[in-house]
Amino acid sequence: MSEFAQFADRLKRPIDVKLHDFQRNERLRHLIFASQLTPQLLEKLRRMADMIRQLSRTKEGNLQLKQLLAHRRAMLYFSQPSTRTFLSFMAACQILGITCNEVRDPKTSSEAKRESKMDSIRMFSSYFDVIIMRTPEPNFAECCAYLMNELESREMRSVPIINAGSGSDEHPTQALLDMYTLMRTFSTDYSRESKQSRFVELQSQTPELKPGIANKTYLFCGDMGRGRTVRSLAYTIGQYPNVRLLFVSPSHETLRLDEQTKKRLRALRADIHEFDSLDAQLEGQPILAQADAVYMTRIQREHNSTQDDSDFSKIDFSQYQLNPERVARMKIYAPILHPFPRDSVMGEIPTSVDMDSRAMYFRQARNGMWARAALLVHLFDAADELFMLHNGR
Amino acid sequence: MSEFAQFADRLKRPIDVKLHDFQRNERLRHLIFASQLTPQLLEKLRRMADMIRQLSRTKEGNLQLKQLLAHRRAMLYFSQPSTRTFLSFMAACQILGITCNEVRDPKTSSEAKRESKMDSIRMFSSYFDVIIMRTPEPNFAECCAYLMNELESREMRSVPIINAGSGSDEHPTQALLDMYTLMRTFSTDYSRESKQSRFVELQSQTPELKPGIANKTYLFCGDMGRGRTVRSLAYTIGQYPNVRLLFVSPSHETLRLDEQTKKRLRALRADIHEFDSLDAQLEGQPILAQADAVYMTRIQREHNSTQDDSDFSKIDFSQYQLNPERVARMKIYAPILHPFPRDSVMGEIPTSVDMDSRAMYFRQARNGMWARAALLVHLFDAADELFMLHNGR
Amino acid sequence: MSEFAQFADRLKRPIDVKLHDFQRNERLRHLIFASQLTPQLLEKLRRMADMIRQLSRTKEGNLQLKQLLAHRRAMLYFSQPSTRTFLSFMAACQILGITCNEVRDPKTSSEAKRESKMDSIRMFSSYFDVIIMRTPEPNFAECCAYLMNELESREMRSVPIINAGSGSDEHPTQALLDMYTLMRTFSTDYSRESKQSRFVELQSQTPELKPGIANKTYLFCGDMGRGRTVRSLAYTIGQYPNVRLLFVSPSHETLRLDEQTKKRLRALRADIHEFDSLDAQLEGQPILAQADAVYMTRIQREHNSTQDDSDFSKIDFSQYQLNPERVARMKIYAPILHPFPRDSVMGEIPTSVDMDSRAMYFRQARNGMWARAALLVHLFDAADELFMLHNGR
Repeated sequence: MSEFAQFADRLKRPIDVKLHDFQRNERLRHLIFASQLTPQLLEKLRRMADMIRQLSRTKEGNLQLKQLLAHRRAMLYFSQPSTRTFLSFMAACQILGITCNEVRDPKTSSEAKRESKMDSIRMFSSYFDVIIMRTPEPNFAECCAYLMNELESREMRSVPIINAGSGSDEHPTQALLDMYTLMRTFSTDYSRESKQSRFVELQSQTPELKPGIANKTYLFCGDMGRGRTVRSLAYTIGQYPNVRLLFVSPSHETLRLDEQTKKRLRALRADIHEFDSLDAQLEGQPILAQADAVYMTRIQREHNSTQDDSDFSKIDFSQYQLNPERVARMKIYAPILHPFPRDSVMGEIPTSVDMDSRAMYFRQARNGMWARAALLVHLFDAADELFMLHNGR
Repeated sequence: MSEFAQFADRLKRPIDVKLHDFQRNERLRHLIFASQLTPQLLEKLRRMADMIRQLSRTKEGNLQLKQLLAHRRAMLYFSQPSTRTFLSFMAACQILGITCNEVRDPKTSSEAKRESKMDSIRMFSSYFDVIIMRTPEPNFAECCAYLMNELESREMRSVPIINAGSGSDEHPTQALLDMYTLMRTFSTDYSRESKQSRFVELQSQTPELKPGIANKTYLFCGDMGRGRTVRSLAYTIGQYPNVRLLFVSPSHETLRLDEQTKKRLRALRADIHEFDSLDAQLEGQPILAQADAVYMTRIQREHNSTQDDSDFSKIDFSQYQLNPERVARMKIYAPILHPFPRDSVMGEIPTSVDMDSRAMYFRQARNGMWARAALLVHLFDAADELFMLHNGR
Repeated sequence: MSEFAQFADRLKRPIDVKLHDFQRNERLRHLIFASQLTPQLLEKLRRMADMIRQLSRTKEGNLQLKQLLAHRRAMLYFSQPSTRTFLSFMAACQILGITCNEVRDPKTSSEAKRESKMDSIRMFSSYFDVIIMRTPEPNFAECCAYLMNELESREMRSVPIINAGSGSDEHPTQALLDMYTLMRTFSTDYSRESKQSRFVELQSQTPELKPGIANKTYLFCGDMGRGRTVRSLAYTIGQYPNVRLLFVSPSHETLRLDEQTKKRLRALRADIHEFDSLDAQLEGQPILAQADAVYMTRIQREHNSTQDDSDFSKIDFSQYQLNPERVARMKIYAPILHPFPRDSVMGEIPTSVDMDSRAMYFRQARNGMWARAALLVHLFDAADELFMLHNGR
């Protein structure tokens, strides 16, 4: 957009240089890119999310949490529809007492009166204390972060920006909740919470299972070309040592992983492999049997070109679907994740898998609420207060 | 819907058998059918609604109520538009401190991405603590209750379901608020609240007036065929001994009471009569003069078939309208109710009746808020806390 | 509307007579017309808005404010889209703990079922404690105030009405926030709050600058014909002694100030002048150099007739645009206001002016939140409680 012209120089910089603009010393100033989610920060957020989850088990804990950020008001600016991400952020805010406001339909907004998008954002920042945004325009959240930084540098009112999915860019809070789910799955910390953690029990059955994200094999399956959640999560996992990333998709250009992503992942020293079927083998072994975690995704038909529609009719999509037989071949501890919604017609995960103990996708959705709440506590610098609440229990 | 196929066996059972699935010992687990509203439960809810109403008279009482369920979050899933029921539930939640979330336009939801309805419901149950739903699909709320029961049986997260009107089924919370209004009208409990209760005063003028729902004549008028509120209320009243139910509607098949409902009512031993005019007589007396309460309804034109449109043009709808002359013939204590909205063009209740002391329909609407709040307190098992608040005043 | 017929006699009365209906002794009962904003009331609201603003600087103050009206629920009935006014009222309510509810799309409401507008309003007043309304129908808010008064006279439930812009009538809360911004700009009260007030410093540079609204020149520029905010603000300023009002617009009938407004302003003894360019002169001096404040507005193209579209193509709109050169000619203390949104294509205020210290329009937007919160405290008669909170700091 022409309005973004003023930020053109900043947009062109390499991502590593940009990241400094979104930090405030040790802390996030805005969350724009999944690359901001370092292993150190993820560990910090995981602990905070766990505290919030534990406090929320009692009425008393809930009422304390609802005071934590009760002096804050949030704007959820979602001009791109997304019920799930939207509701998850709403719930996260509500847990912490943050009052929510929303603008969802661009037609009801002042944009119809030719207000610039930047004026709309400044309006939101006048009334509210954080802007959580999901919009179809690429780089929009990034530009808003630059605008806020500029206002702050002039000692004017400025608020944090959270990218809840902008354009076909990354989707950093999805990566956050996916990582939170994986970290919980591969952690020994939860032995006391019998229902929630299967780790210690599973470890006794499979001694090769070690805690942590590093040194593991992650299998991604489905729409690798258009799935921003895959990209965001793969970068984040790629920061850990000795990880193997397996990408399973039709070899069609629209659907397979793009070259630029592969290049960035290789720069992180991740070990990358591509396949065109869930039944493929690597080094003589079925890939499904080697995966420590399986991340399924939906084919995003709504973004198909006419050519895609025609091409895809020749693809055998059953190669990219789980079913009880394939699940039976997986490691007994390997969690199945999906960013949801899943496609009930295509059936990349049929409901027959739902009751398997490895099906982690509903729990993953609920994790999104805790992880996003932790992010808000972090951005508002209320971690110390949360620790005190938690220890005071 | 094909998704409901998994619940086909349960859906086919007779209603009496089903009811056990929606109870948890003495308490409601879900509210799906009006038949769950037994006289005992209604009396319990009436007392709770009265307490909430009394507490809300002071700022202090209000602030206490707002803490009662402040640790809960509700999803109002209203894919079928209904401003009145929606706002009434919103207000009920807010009185108790329950944080509200809504999904109203199905297009903004994940259903556009072919997510199954059951996945949507599980998403809601991941983030929220109760699902209040109004949808055009018949049996949908019932199926959701079965899904929740199944999750609970597997020790997974499960939340209560409230049917706020599903398909052309019953509308149990409307029956609840109608009953609450009738119980208040026919009660001696409110002698201290001078403004609210006319009962004691009216009783001194008409010695034949006795307290309670039993032993009375109830007149229903308007769209008997399509009014689910009529059906729900009639079943509920039918549970009380010695009640007479008069149904006044055009004798057209679309508009008159269906045979199945009549059969169910007769099974309850209710005394049923049908008429085609408000001026009709029963046993030589005008029916209007015999009614202890008059329940008016709107002709639901929006559900007309083309044939209906043609047929209805020949009907004299003035036979189904109140006016000051007809009201003058009613008993001086007989309340006039209407589920609202009323049709300002058709005029089944013209505004000239509004200032009559028997016009109870605006008070009835406000009663909906208190009655629904009582239901939420009951479902969340917070009745004891409410009693303590009320006694501590 | 025919429904308003019952209020026809009251609507016809002169405005001075009407005002009594909207007062309750010294206090507002409803806010319908800008004429209710007397200098005395404005001063009272300014002090309250300042207290709210100061309390909101700390978490503790915020939490105290959130208890002030936590027992109240508001209905924001906005059938005419307006993101800015809507969000500003939402934020104002939230600061005070008022729970918000909204009806924005008339199609989702009971109006589709031919419910009368007056029944809808009574429904809102059944569930909520104040109705904040913005609707396209002229006089609608006024009629709702009459309805509420009538209910109160019959000892029935009644709530305050706030006109948030009805038809092409006035827009009194916009006048309120504009006045609040001007009063703050021209006040010596804020010397302690270094960042917010430039007044004392500016006074030392320009000794002719005196505090207060009286004895000053106000320049209005843009769409004088259709801008209800201009009309509302001009009336309000016109109540102060010795003010000069300069109106700058194309001389086209649609865009210049209407005769009736001029007549009403002259009745207030305001000194009125009209111009067709920002570069015009008055008494040999450029008008821009004489203005103590400049109020810019957007050309409301969305209300153009076909004839307007054709006529306007011949108008040189650059005569009604600020730019750095024109701003340079203004007094160094003269604030630039704009009711927003501004037109990013037309550019009546280009972004190149945004960083000038006189650009007050973003601060003005945030002032709207404080001023509206003060109004709510006033309407709910909670001023004394607010004073106590403020003094207890």
